[in-house]
Amino acid sequence: MNASRKSVVACCQVAPKLGDLAYNRRMTERVIRSAALKGAQVVVLPELVQSGYLFHDLAEALALSESTDGPTVRLWEALARELDIVIVGGFCERLDECRVANSAALVDSQGLRALYRKTHLWDGENAIFTPGTASPPVVDTEYGRIGVMICYDLEFPEWVRIAALAGAQLLCAPVNWPDGPRPSIERPAEVVRVQANASVNRMFIAACDRHGLERGVNWVQGSVIVDPDGYPLVGPAGTAGEQILMATLNLVDARNKRISDNNHLHEDRRPELYSAGGLLA
Amino acid sequence: MNASRKSVVACCQVAPKLGDLAYNRRMTERVIRSAALKGAQVVVLPELVQSGYLFHDLAEALALSESTDGPTVRLWEALARELDIVIVGGFCERLDECRVANSAALVDSQGLRALYRKTHLWDGENAIFTPGTASPPVVDTEYGRIGVMICYDLEFPEWVRIAALAGAQLLCAPVNWPDGPRPSIERPAEVVRVQANASVNRMFIAACDRHGLERGVNWVQGSVIVDPDGYPLVGPAGTAGEQILMATLNLVDARNKRISDNNHLHEDRRPELYSAGGLLA
Repeated sequence: MNASRKSVVACCQVAPKLGDLAYNRRMTERVIRSAALKGAQVVVLPELVQSGYLFHDLAEALALSESTDGPTVRLWEALARELDIVIVGGFCERLDECRVANSAALVDSQGLRALYRKTHLWDGENAIFTPGTASPPVVDTEYGRIGVMICYDLEFPEWVRIAALAGAQLLCAPVNWPDGPRPSIERPAEVVRVQANASVNRMFIAACDRHGLERGVNWVQGSVIVDPDGYPLVGPAGTAGEQILMATLNLVDARNKRISDNNHLHEDRRPELYSAGGLLA
Repeated sequence: MNASRKSVVACCQVAPKLGDLAYNRRMTERVIRSAALKGAQVVVLPELVQSGYLFHDLAEALALSESTDGPTVRLWEALARELDIVIVGGFCERLDECRVANSAALVDSQGLRALYRKTHLWDGENAIFTPGTASPPVVDTEYGRIGVMICYDLEFPEWVRIAALAGAQLLCAPVNWPDGPRPSIERPAEVVRVQANASVNRMFIAACDRHGLERGVNWVQGSVIVDPDGYPLVGPAGTAGEQILMATLNLVDARNKRISDNNHLHEDRRPELYSAGGLLA
């Protein structure tokens, strides 16, 4: 990536239909093309946008799962090649005859560049998905060095730190944030955590949420793109339904972890003390 | 601590005078008594409230340093005993003839219960203070299980996690947050990080900032008490100068790390993967 070049990133906050794989594919194609037409070079889609989220059970998830050779990831690969963009989106991945993962693919003009399987599973997901065991991938693309993780993973600053230490300038996070109560004047805590994760690592984060009532559940609709200081460049999207949020990022800013003459956010860490303190106990 | 009992916590956002140790002692006594009169059981004071912050050099810091047997910590011990409260405050600690630490004392009716030396040093502090090498202390008090760390330490979620894993229900953090530019509609990132630290650990955090221009530096004046959901109960104080912020905390809430039928914020951690991912490399 040229040092002076900026990257245009889009979060497409859409509403997949649970179980309607063909509809969801068409819908992602529509918003990917729309975002690219507006100049997006990196397009982030929600978690499980290929399938919907609230499966009754493993059997339902298995029936809706696809491999990375399936029609959804193939479509995204074709679009990434045609439009010369990066796409990060979530899908229900078939691992074998009886196991699925809550996965995200990163594709670009070269094809599938990274596959991530959600490691920290939320609530009912524990009964359905096999958790990942690999670190969040961090990939050099034409538009910057990009890391990937999914939703509840973001509540573990340790996990975000691993992606940041691996050099991610932009972390793309497909999410499905179920809505819940909060003080009316407050930003959702999900967004606050994204802000803090960005600021303690001086890294951009693009979190793409969904909308659309599904089996009684509504969503925060908190899609947001945050800068390395921890402030939103665009979003949180709020409750307005479908949104394409776009921001132009100077990703080189995320390479500089110096925050004073004598401070560097990563070099100031004290891993030997964290170990002694029981961080990994 | 009785499970149903609530704890009243106060942050005293005051302005120490650099180098005027007698003034600073009297000032802390005034606000400690004032907070206790209003019902405070845990009183948090700013970082280096005993001395002021912006030392020119080590010689100046040494001249203003005190040991835990010095008049400031002794005063706080006497007040804690008389008023039957917990006090957490920052002071410039004399380690020996040529070394000082940026320290915080936790005192209660029993006397000095914990001493913490700031581990992550900010900017010019690196030329003055010897950094701590011990984990943040976590102490059982009459008013709950309380952890202590200082200012820039809060930018390291690993450090906050260590206090939380040790069972802190309330983290008391003396801070001096130098003011800086930010988007006018945004909460200071310092406060956002406190919110996120609280929410990913379901722990209360009381951060006590200062006010008062010192050698050309102003302060965020962002004192805040945050609940385990990550939302402020009181503050950020803003630019109004001296403030005593008070909140009544049901600290038992912080013992429960369950956030869904199938999720527990600490048990959901994957330390073996964090290690494999290079978190402590």
